[in-house]
Amino acid sequence: MAKTTTSLREVLRAPSGPVSLADLDPRGTPHAPGDKDATRDQMAADGAELSLLQERLYAEGVSGGDRRVLLVLQGMDTSGKGGVIKHVAGAVNPQGVLITSFKKPSAEELRHGFLWRVRRAVPAPGLLGVFDRSHYEDVLIGRVRELASPAVIERRYKEIARFEDQLAEAGVTIVKCMLHISRWEQKQRLLARLDDSTKRWKFNPGDIDERALWTDYQRAYEIAIERTSTEANPWYVVPGDRKWYRNWAVGRLLLEAVGDLAPRFPAAEYDVAEQRDRLIDEAD
Amino acid sequence: MAKTTTSLREVLRAPSGPVSLADLDPRGTPHAPGDKDATRDQMAADGAELSLLQERLYAEGVSGGDRRVLLVLQGMDTSGKGGVIKHVAGAVNPQGVLITSFKKPSAEELRHGFLWRVRRAVPAPGLLGVFDRSHYEDVLIGRVRELASPAVIERRYKEIARFEDQLAEAGVTIVKCMLHISRWEQKQRLLARLDDSTKRWKFNPGDIDERALWTDYQRAYEIAIERTSTEANPWYVVPGDRKWYRNWAVGRLLLEAVGDLAPRFPAAEYDVAEQRDRLIDEAD
Repeated sequence: MAKTTTSLREVLRAPSGPVSLADLDPRGTPHAPGDKDATRDQMAADGAELSLLQERLYAEGVSGGDRRVLLVLQGMDTSGKGGVIKHVAGAVNPQGVLITSFKKPSAEELRHGFLWRVRRAVPAPGLLGVFDRSHYEDVLIGRVRELASPAVIERRYKEIARFEDQLAEAGVTIVKCMLHISRWEQKQRLLARLDDSTKRWKFNPGDIDERALWTDYQRAYEIAIERTSTEANPWYVVPGDRKWYRNWAVGRLLLEAVGDLAPRFPAAEYDVAEQRDRLIDEAD
Repeated sequence: MAKTTTSLREVLRAPSGPVSLADLDPRGTPHAPGDKDATRDQMAADGAELSLLQERLYAEGVSGGDRRVLLVLQGMDTSGKGGVIKHVAGAVNPQGVLITSFKKPSAEELRHGFLWRVRRAVPAPGLLGVFDRSHYEDVLIGRVRELASPAVIERRYKEIARFEDQLAEAGVTIVKCMLHISRWEQKQRLLARLDDSTKRWKFNPGDIDERALWTDYQRAYEIAIERTSTEANPWYVVPGDRKWYRNWAVGRLLLEAVGDLAPRFPAAEYDVAEQRDRLIDEAD
């Protein structure tokens, strides 16, 4: 961390005001520490640092702290949400991580407001929560597929912003990442899934149907980012065509966020010398 | 796996009939692949293999399979449940792992039967579930601290065995490990926690109170293991005084169990060539 002068958060933060994804290069590698190999090395080092910081945050949580971190991952199919989870969350002690994948809502979930299932998945103090898709689906596929009326969609942006403000007040640092890939890159990745018998289970013919709505989805992302990127809870648009860059970048964004919290191992709430004596003097 | 002729499961499986923990050496390293370094190397190799198998199990689950694995970890304070989770579960894609830590039951949990909170934590198909403590606490601390009447405790053993049979029928392979440490080793580990300012948060003065009941706890473990070790859901007693052995052994028990399931990547349920053509022919 010491070597970095500009934070990656400043570099990848979504602009305030109108967002044009077409102007953000999915193949870009802004602020990368070097080429592919150098970036992977840095990612390993960052992961080790994140793991140490996360342990302290966990210790704080056990000792009554309320701080926690929530990584929200959004992106088109094949944009790499799973890869990020494997490489970034995988660097941290699994006991400190809570991953929630949001699929198509169940019948029970549909009987409640769209934030109901999300509230239940907010990580407890000390944890690193990861949302693989999130409440944003309700203004993305919700908008593109017209699963709700325009008025309802409009209201949801405000509900989301308010919800995230509440989380921030409750001690949750939210890191929202849109993994930004090109339409061409998605095609290559879908073809790769079809060509590899160990990856065919990840493919669904419906993926091609959604792909046909690419432009609509991009627009839905732009609007969502515009309406919900706030000072406290900004969006980051992470170029995703290069996997090595994407993995490093998301890990680095997290590391910067957790580093800012500067979690510390809590002091003992008991008399250490006294407890030591109790153990030493024990009749064995 | 190919090099191993005897399975570790045969070696560490609790004897049928009366169990005497005093006769099982906590410092033992039965069937270890070599010394500390060699065993750690083997653990890394086993972890990589477990990770590959788990991905297949996950793929099966996504495609409608019902199989999953549940690692139940029990043991006295400092016996290494956390260390096992970090090293064994940490080797697997975090998206495929669901860890549940069972603490002192909440008021809501106490209003239900003791298995209520456990049923809610059973991993979904395809996942590797890990219980850090479990329903066994209700016949361990429950028995030692007389949190329930002897008649209730008696009934619980049967309820547990029936519950686990139901899980087995539902596709859950349960791997129950008792991490077996010596009283002396626990003392060293508690002292180490007190002496290290980054570990003091893990210590609680109540740990020494529980330690005074060591013999009662050992007896409660023996009875629990006797009553609930079945053909389908056996207990393994894992020597825990040597961390490197313990981590390797639990990982290996899991690997053997998942290996027996021989999970396979599912075949595509769609016409691969047709989908490929759809992508290639797409108007871009």
